[in-house]
Amino acid sequence: MASIKDYILDVPDFPKKGVVFKDITPLLINHDVFQETIILLSKDFQNKGITKVVGIDSRGFLLAAPCALLLGAGLVPVRKKGKLPREVFRQAYQCEYHNNEIDVHKDAFTPSDKVLIVDDVLATGGTARAAYELVKCAGAEVIGFSFLLELGFLNGRAQLPNGPLISAVVNYQ
Amino acid sequence: MASIKDYILDVPDFPKKGVVFKDITPLLINHDVFQETIILLSKDFQNKGITKVVGIDSRGFLLAAPCALLLGAGLVPVRKKGKLPREVFRQAYQCEYHNNEIDVHKDAFTPSDKVLIVDDVLATGGTARAAYELVKCAGAEVIGFSFLLELGFLNGRAQLPNGPLISAVVNYQ
Repeated sequence: MASIKDYILDVPDFPKKGVVFKDITPLLINHDVFQETIILLSKDFQNKGITKVVGIDSRGFLLAAPCALLLGAGLVPVRKKGKLPREVFRQAYQCEYHNNEIDVHKDAFTPSDKVLIVDDVLATGGTARAAYELVKCAGAEVIGFSFLLELGFLNGRAQLPNGPLISAVVNYQ
Repeated sequence: MASIKDYILDVPDFPKKGVVFKDITPLLINHDVFQETIILLSKDFQNKGITKVVGIDSRGFLLAAPCALLLGAGLVPVRKKGKLPREVFRQAYQCEYHNNEIDVHKDAFTPSDKVLIVDDVLATGGTARAAYELVKCAGAEVIGFSFLLELGFLNGRAQLPNGPLISAVVNYQ
């Protein structure tokens, strides 16, 4: 039987030579596998009182939006620098093949919020760590993380606080 | 009672002077309003045999992903030029304040697919029209369109084929 990992394609040398891009579009296109993935990314957080789900620009949006609805939570987009129109917290980060900054609206959280951070791939952990710092800037609490794919050999987990971290698929090499 | 339109903020002069940006983040952050929106964008298509929902990069992703799951359909991201890693169809378009190109993977559709196109804002219709052309390139059928917000005074509808078009909110000025 095919499993979630069979719907993630390796595309070598994209977006630049030496990088193996993880293409999740074959998974998204298959309703049953997409639905199974969303349930897997959410289920361990169903009794944790999550009030906001953070989706990281832009593939994280595809997973975070349905997770938020399933968990009865609001959705907060964390966006690449300069895309959000009002006052933001901003955080720099370094990831597998570029440096960048991400923003979140200053009024996106209240101190009582319990937050789940969702993204497609956990690689070196730079982006997820930056999202975590943004939630902390706003005074809210990060309860955990969910990723479709964890590149275990890059040990991105080590950049993140202890606590629940779900990966639907883990690649060890 | 507050309605969906009360959760869309006008932000003047963003991303450049003279443009009024429509900020949908207050809507997303409110679970009940977000859920109501997704139901509204989907319900007229529930008996139309939709097999794929197209989400337009990147705010369209936030709406299209839950619509796809609700409709029992797969999700196809249409992305800004150069973001998809495999062979694409590409379409140029002009919109309210810039020109651009969007891509879709060539294998995203089969000719038997029935497609719903989802985006956050229908302005001049350039982006939605380009997405429509991409689906046609692939030989599939566009059944309809769903938008969170239609700027009625720009008459973007006129750029799109006749058929079902849902807008959760219409601004007439």
